[in-house]
Amino acid sequence: MVKIPKSHPRYWSLYYREKIIEGMEKGITAKAGLIAHGRGEAFDYLIGEKTIPPAEEAMKAAVAKLLLAEHPVISVNGNVAALVPKETVELAKALGAKLEVNLFYRTEERVKKIAEVLYEHGAEEVLGINPTKFIPGLESERAKVDERGIWKADVVVVPLEDGDRTEALVKMGKFVITVDLNPLSRSARMADITIVDNIIRAYPRMIELAKEMKSWDKERLQDVLKSYDNSKVLSDVLIHIRDRLTRLASEGVWRKERLD
Amino acid sequence: MVKIPKSHPRYWSLYYREKIIEGMEKGITAKAGLIAHGRGEAFDYLIGEKTIPPAEEAMKAAVAKLLLAEHPVISVNGNVAALVPKETVELAKALGAKLEVNLFYRTEERVKKIAEVLYEHGAEEVLGINPTKFIPGLESERAKVDERGIWKADVVVVPLEDGDRTEALVKMGKFVITVDLNPLSRSARMADITIVDNIIRAYPRMIELAKEMKSWDKERLQDVLKSYDNSKVLSDVLIHIRDRLTRLASEGVWRKERLD
Repeated sequence: MVKIPKSHPRYWSLYYREKIIEGMEKGITAKAGLIAHGRGEAFDYLIGEKTIPPAEEAMKAAVAKLLLAEHPVISVNGNVAALVPKETVELAKALGAKLEVNLFYRTEERVKKIAEVLYEHGAEEVLGINPTKFIPGLESERAKVDERGIWKADVVVVPLEDGDRTEALVKMGKFVITVDLNPLSRSARMADITIVDNIIRAYPRMIELAKEMKSWDKERLQDVLKSYDNSKVLSDVLIHIRDRLTRLASEGVWRKERLD
Repeated sequence: MVKIPKSHPRYWSLYYREKIIEGMEKGITAKAGLIAHGRGEAFDYLIGEKTIPPAEEAMKAAVAKLLLAEHPVISVNGNVAALVPKETVELAKALGAKLEVNLFYRTEERVKKIAEVLYEHGAEEVLGINPTKFIPGLESERAKVDERGIWKADVVVVPLEDGDRTEALVKMGKFVITVDLNPLSRSARMADITIVDNIIRAYPRMIELAKEMKSWDKERLQDVLKSYDNSKVLSDVLIHIRDRLTRLASEGVWRKERLD
């Protein structure tokens, strides 16, 4: 990994950029994943690089739904494995969910490498190595899922996912939770719960929420879900971005930072 | 290079994505450059993938300043060399500016390869091969500049540049012009003139402007600069993005697409 001076004002952004590059070099992240990461960075800028209230609300509903689920599954792709391998394993444990490697640009080698990364970070079981089922409506390579994982799941978390696949899962009757920085992406639009946040902030927060909400009774969890409205949450995100841009435009962004 | 059908609605975006990947494969673009490119793509999408009036205004002021400069220098990095090598050389000629290779992730090999690309496209001189000076306030690898180039320059164009370096150049007393699709980046905020546009559109337009404005007298060029306000230009860009997002959002977000 290239060394970034800790003094750089955007150290963390550069740090995770290096993580994605390292992921590509190790063969766990696809090249297209690098460009997708860049797109995410752009939307994170617009949001303000912090967790906003509609994302917090979505995370709470997501955790409630996952704790109520019978067969919750967390999907893992090359970008997720590069950015938050440890947090992915911890989140699955905190929720009692299964982990399944699921790739848009699937190669057996990448699947195996990602599974290895998850095992290194403490996963007990990783599904998706030998998928025997196919999501209906998708061309075969993109459709492969594990019979004991996504195929059987009632609730699935598909972070940083392709829109077509998110939609196909919704059509299968799955309850779909996504994490996506672009509130206008097809994944964001199609999912049942859309967490518009950077996964490097969202997963740690979801682990906290899972630990806290685990002791809640069913009714309380169901109440969280009943009052949740994904359409409103997505609108709130857009309003947040709109208001932030308005505020920045009126305050002026030019040389308002350092230059001491 | 992967062949993209010319009929594809986003042909040019995909074409330049392939150019960046090709640049990486040839060793002229850093891997982190792919991520930066993805970020640019997202902002370009938000802007509407065309040159907007505040960018046109900024380009006109930039060209005026460059024509008035005593030692104008155009900096070239791996992304610029992959996307607009021919236009970079042409712009330098039209402005009577020097060219300097200047990399965030500097390796001697990449510097040489980029210089070669510029020579292939007709450059007469390329600086930055043997930099002997250091921009104050930056850690050494990131600070290297050419004594006859950026070091001596009164006006520098640093397209697609890191924010820390842009700021350091401003602190040195340089007049800094940047081209950056992200109006909230530190480079955009720190530069004296910020052209929020895709470099593939900006450089050809700046070449036209340079040819046209070359015959103007000093006073007329100075008048362009006097009426220029970078803070207002950046605010105008933010308002443009805000209005476009609002329009995109009003068309409906959640499950307003397919799910047939």
